[in-house]
Amino acid sequence: MKKAILVILSACLPIAATVALADEGMWTIDNFPADAVADKYGVRIGDQWLSDAQLATTRLENGCTGSFASADGLVLTNNHCTWGCIRNLSTADRNLSDEGFMATERGEELRCPSQQVSVLVDMDDVTGDIADATADLPDAEANDARKAELTRLESACEEESGGEFRCEAVTLYNGGQYFIYKYKRYDDVRLVFAPELDIAAFGGDPDNFNFPRWCLDMTFLRVYEDGQPASTPNYLKWRRSGPMPGDPVFITGHPGSTNRSLTVSQLKMQRDVSIPLYLYRMNEFRGRLLAWQNTSDEAAREVQQRILSIENGIKVRRNQLKALQNDEMMAQKMVDEQALRELVMGDDEMRAAYGEAWDVIDEAMRNYRNMYEDYLFVEGGAGFGGSLFTYARTIVRGTAEREKPNEERLRLYTDAALPQREQRLFAARPINREYEELSLTFSLEKMREWLGPDSQYVHKVLGNDSPASLAARLVSESKLDDPEVRKALWNGGVDAVNASEDPMIRLALAIDPDARALRDRYETEVEAPRIRGEEMIADARFAVHGTDIYPDATFTLRVTYGAVKGWEEKGAMVEPFTKTSRLFERTTGERPFKLPDSWAASREQLDPDTRFNFSATTDITGGNSGSPIVADDGSLVGLAFDGNIHSIAGDYWFDESTNRTVGVNTAIILEALETVYGADHLLDELTIID
Amino acid sequence: MKKAILVILSACLPIAATVALADEGMWTIDNFPADAVADKYGVRIGDQWLSDAQLATTRLENGCTGSFASADGLVLTNNHCTWGCIRNLSTADRNLSDEGFMATERGEELRCPSQQVSVLVDMDDVTGDIADATADLPDAEANDARKAELTRLESACEEESGGEFRCEAVTLYNGGQYFIYKYKRYDDVRLVFAPELDIAAFGGDPDNFNFPRWCLDMTFLRVYEDGQPASTPNYLKWRRSGPMPGDPVFITGHPGSTNRSLTVSQLKMQRDVSIPLYLYRMNEFRGRLLAWQNTSDEAAREVQQRILSIENGIKVRRNQLKALQNDEMMAQKMVDEQALRELVMGDDEMRAAYGEAWDVIDEAMRNYRNMYEDYLFVEGGAGFGGSLFTYARTIVRGTAEREKPNEERLRLYTDAALPQREQRLFAARPINREYEELSLTFSLEKMREWLGPDSQYVHKVLGNDSPASLAARLVSESKLDDPEVRKALWNGGVDAVNASEDPMIRLALAIDPDARALRDRYETEVEAPRIRGEEMIADARFAVHGTDIYPDATFTLRVTYGAVKGWEEKGAMVEPFTKTSRLFERTTGERPFKLPDSWAASREQLDPDTRFNFSATTDITGGNSGSPIVADDGSLVGLAFDGNIHSIAGDYWFDESTNRTVGVNTAIILEALETVYGADHLLDELTIID
Repeated sequence: MKKAILVILSACLPIAATVALADEGMWTIDNFPADAVADKYGVRIGDQWLSDAQLATTRLENGCTGSFASADGLVLTNNHCTWGCIRNLSTADRNLSDEGFMATERGEELRCPSQQVSVLVDMDDVTGDIADATADLPDAEANDARKAELTRLESACEEESGGEFRCEAVTLYNGGQYFIYKYKRYDDVRLVFAPELDIAAFGGDPDNFNFPRWCLDMTFLRVYEDGQPASTPNYLKWRRSGPMPGDPVFITGHPGSTNRSLTVSQLKMQRDVSIPLYLYRMNEFRGRLLAWQNTSDEAAREVQQRILSIENGIKVRRNQLKALQNDEMMAQKMVDEQALRELVMGDDEMRAAYGEAWDVIDEAMRNYRNMYEDYLFVEGGAGFGGSLFTYARTIVRGTAEREKPNEERLRLYTDAALPQREQRLFAARPINREYEELSLTFSLEKMREWLGPDSQYVHKVLGNDSPASLAARLVSESKLDDPEVRKALWNGGVDAVNASEDPMIRLALAIDPDARALRDRYETEVEAPRIRGEEMIADARFAVHGTDIYPDATFTLRVTYGAVKGWEEKGAMVEPFTKTSRLFERTTGERPFKLPDSWAASREQLDPDTRFNFSATTDITGGNSGSPIVADDGSLVGLAFDGNIHSIAGDYWFDESTNRTVGVNTAIILEALETVYGADHLLDELTIID
Repeated sequence: MKKAILVILSACLPIAATVALADEGMWTIDNFPADAVADKYGVRIGDQWLSDAQLATTRLENGCTGSFASADGLVLTNNHCTWGCIRNLSTADRNLSDEGFMATERGEELRCPSQQVSVLVDMDDVTGDIADATADLPDAEANDARKAELTRLESACEEESGGEFRCEAVTLYNGGQYFIYKYKRYDDVRLVFAPELDIAAFGGDPDNFNFPRWCLDMTFLRVYEDGQPASTPNYLKWRRSGPMPGDPVFITGHPGSTNRSLTVSQLKMQRDVSIPLYLYRMNEFRGRLLAWQNTSDEAAREVQQRILSIENGIKVRRNQLKALQNDEMMAQKMVDEQALRELVMGDDEMRAAYGEAWDVIDEAMRNYRNMYEDYLFVEGGAGFGGSLFTYARTIVRGTAEREKPNEERLRLYTDAALPQREQRLFAARPINREYEELSLTFSLEKMREWLGPDSQYVHKVLGNDSPASLAARLVSESKLDDPEVRKALWNGGVDAVNASEDPMIRLALAIDPDARALRDRYETEVEAPRIRGEEMIADARFAVHGTDIYPDATFTLRVTYGAVKGWEEKGAMVEPFTKTSRLFERTTGERPFKLPDSWAASREQLDPDTRFNFSATTDITGGNSGSPIVADDGSLVGLAFDGNIHSIAGDYWFDESTNRTVGVNTAIILEALETVYGADHLLDELTIID
């Protein structure tokens, strides 16, 4: 029997009772509930299945998932996971977002400036090492020791692999387990095929998180090694027809984060402070971009996908907030928390070990509320928008951190992390100065608004300038848009940085001591006690439930299971499939309901009954975008790209009656490649089974 | 002993106990707690004092307050209460907002296109008439009967006055009392003097709702009758020095609305639904305007004050939401509600009369949640932004309503209300088509976002258009920017409207049946039961407390009292006065902390120690803007223009320890008029006492 974190319904319910199992859980590959799946769906998922799925699943380092689609490094992912790449590769003459892109031979494949793709190859449990390193230390010292030990373990792992693997520390169960994950990483990632944005994101923001749906949200990338397509023998076969209603399906991928095991005080921190502030800021920023995009074609190209990304973030937060404002749900969380707490307090040993956990976290949250805005704007990046400042800060911080021993550095600048920092810093990307100015002005204005004009930080940054005039000056005078300038500063180290007269570098230098002080305070007053409290709660849960629970999502590999299924909405059933016919009926002449010419021209050739998108009960979240949806035989039947609106509350709990994954059916992908795009060479590369 | 609505602290506290009295309450003129004031401050406020204050206080029909400053119709109010007028009077060559304005003789005074000023001259209690008219009727019929009776009473009152007065129905104590208020109304209102926006709103949005503060937020208007300055013998003398620390002060004015007697389910409706949606929409709109204003000087002039108004609304809602998310405060509201409910249920007679009140309101709120978005966007105006659609809707609705008997009309189009409708409709105002398009596009996009692309209303409005293309077409083709066109349609009645090919009229006609159906549903399912529930609760409160309570604010005349006083903020005392010296120290070269040239040039001539703005414990809210702050001798000592940040929670409860009014000291007004503006003619018109 498997039991998820949230099933302690009340203190009255016997903890060991067998409860009906929902399709809940983002399970680690080594703790997949195969027996429960066999019981419910009559299919047996074995170790080989899981191992094959692991090696065929890729992580996109910008926050997505993909899957290998051929032995030659072909990667299937979502179109929306590649918007940054598509924007960076577009020019005034060639808008790849509007036009789509298809390389007809490998020489035409275009390298994405900063896309990286990884595959998880191994995992080491280092929970014991961390426990040893932090034993008997006060919170703040334990926090430092934990980070140093994780850095040391990462470096040791990378050295041991002779540079073949990237090694990353992973925290599971909010500190209940620590792992070192080994990844094979590909830095040379090229764009192979992308449909036009108008069909990839048909329905735009209005349809986002909605279903029924008609999106061909797909892109093919290819990973290269030494200038050649990488050899990727672990790829997925594609099933031509996609899944049938009721079919069990499985999703492997990298769900970004969930908050199902947070305490009530942590949830209230989100409800009252962090989510509202995000929404206030991002709704305004959305408005600024929507107005600015009308000023020129270049502006429109610069921000059309950024706007969709922001709108996505807004919809997520808005529905998270709605979930947290549900008084019954919050009351249930309190009951659950109280139940575990009473179990702990009723046992002498557990009370001694874990009893103070909730008070410790409550105190950390009070501290966080007191410093949240300062931290967010000055250290958390919200006060300094745009790429130029981000470059400046990376250069200022990174050169200073490199001078320290590896274990004493900020975790973003350890030896294990530096290659990724450098790739992003040195990558040649077009910089739109108007956008930079808009973005920096906005963030400086918000910093002044939220910290107040009399804040010491605001004084230091603005002096007698306004946000707009300061941003205009910094953006026009900075040379950091030139990768060679960035490289020279980075390689020149602290001396070069201190001697630099670049105004963005000067600003980053000026604010860095304040930002670091805020980070120190955050780590001491918020992070350290929070982690200690969370570790205690995780251990208490293990003590009560064993390991028959799954950890919150952490952008690490997970497997989830479920079935192709609709749901009931306001008394009516939502069918689990959409068909091509309705796409054409729903089209208007205007974005976001406008079809690209290629589709309009193919209408007669396309089968109106082809299943387009579908919904399934699988438990996923952001980061799973681009995940393969596979059948019990391991074949690809769909491509996850969204959840329904109810899936957003899945950040806090899973409700099988309404929470749905939304995916693209392989049937429509294959038909579109053939009929709309004439992509025979790609179809030939895939292995398709009937 | 006076007792405010909120002092039932718990069911354990004896209801009749004497409690320490806070400076709480927006009291009606006929129920002012003079004894409590005498006890606390040692000053006696008599009937003559109140009557004089009433007649010297004006209501600005755009949602503000003012006071007569001379016998020749001179009105003092806030600068921010006259932004619409200033914008309407500005041209490409003459930006009155940037430059300020001063008429050096009466012939130069400029008529505001749609400003109206009223003075309350009498009040009739008609509670009995309403009770008779609604006796024994079911909710929905009672609701109709109540409105018809109020319309009848208004018309009867106006007829009786021979057209001299405007009569308005007023609901107090959420239905505990009904009144007919008689107003002397001035339709010819002219701009006399306004300082530059940079000093009127110094600190802009960052300083809004903050204190210490340095704003000369004042404007002089003048009311005219028959083309001549009106005779206004009831005006206030000005005290040159302003108030001293600790002085008792009084504020008369028209607080717009408070929500102190709402039930918990009503508060949660605001917390979960209406306030978040407002904030999502308005933060985005703010962003659009902030970006659009950079596109041209005309755009900047069009929206600079609109942006400040929106930012004000955002800050208010944000802090209201913060108050409502305070779990302790909400728990207290529940305790208070439960206490009254238990008192009611414990008495047979009261239980029979009021027992179901809370359930009735809860049901109304559930209904409201189910229809809120549809109602807000389709009938509530949020889906159709800009002036042109507003004109179209007024014409479509008004011509149709005029055909009906007075008592059967929508209340906005009764005989009593029509003159104001017509003045606004016929007033010549510049219409910026770019702004109209931006505003309509935004609101249509939000309608589609919130109702969904498959909503019947969205289908009817958009068809196959996008919001942007529809808005562009409607705005470019509509002729409703021409007052003569509007007048012809209005006077032509239903036939002219039905024959019109103006696309904005066609849209208003097309959506009107849907909008009216939503209004009907709202009135039946939400408004009618809500009012019945509120009337029951109000009567229960009267039964328990007598009339020693004050009604929630309703944009009707109120008096509040308090003292000039600072408060404790994060352990430090905030002084109740600011001085001119710090204004100059705080100035930067950039808006919103930039001083106008006139002030920069006068720095040496101004006394650095003059008291500029001050704080007081008086209980006010929006609508009180422009209110006179008067001493116990009835002389003007200040001009209310804001509250501190804690005053926003005053929407739900009053906390004397932190809630403060912020006002302009008469001392700085007089000094500025003399030294900065050389306004000797205005100083001569005032009656100044030392």
